[in-house]
Amino acid sequence: MQMKNVFIHHVYFWLKNADSSEDLADLVAGLEKLTACTTIQQYHIGKPAATSRDVIDGSYAVSWCLFFANKVDQDAYQTDAMHLHFIDTCQHLWNKVVVYDSVDV
Amino acid sequence: MQMKNVFIHHVYFWLKNADSSEDLADLVAGLEKLTACTTIQQYHIGKPAATSRDVIDGSYAVSWCLFFANKVDQDAYQTDAMHLHFIDTCQHLWNKVVVYDSVDV
Repeated sequence: MQMKNVFIHHVYFWLKNADSSEDLADLVAGLEKLTACTTIQQYHIGKPAATSRDVIDGSYAVSWCLFFANKVDQDAYQTDAMHLHFIDTCQHLWNKVVVYDSVDV
Repeated sequence: MQMKNVFIHHVYFWLKNADSSEDLADLVAGLEKLTACTTIQQYHIGKPAATSRDVIDGSYAVSWCLFFANKVDQDAYQTDAMHLHFIDTCQHLWNKVVVYDSVDV
């Protein structure tokens, strides 16, 4: 089934303490709270799958895949108080973040 | 709404001829054919959104976001004749591919 009329905001986090299961749990807990943002239509909190090929980057700790209805909603999410609180309380956990924003081609 | 029990296979393509709208159209057409693979549950063909922050990588040409039921289905997709045909006929179009595979945390 084709997903259309969506704005995909896909974030990959790398942990400062890559081997800390506590830091991983804290980041996931922070993201779970963040799912209360009303502009988020669908979300997935992921970890690297057990796949390995040259083109696969499986070095991240957490995948945070969000679906919004449009750019306006995604922009609102960026400045949502819950999102700012998440950044304030969790940004000490990661040392790298890569974001890919996509809309229908 | 939370997406659970999924395998997300998210591929980002960079075109060899970054400014070629014809090559872009050929790649999208190839992906559209590939959506006939029966193991694909949901898919989105995307382009970079009009967002810009330090953490955002908007340099890719096409986002190919696939949802599978599980790793077995994704593995089957990798060797599906339609997928191999897509690689054969379209790989001359890109010069970089990055893949992130994610499962439920």
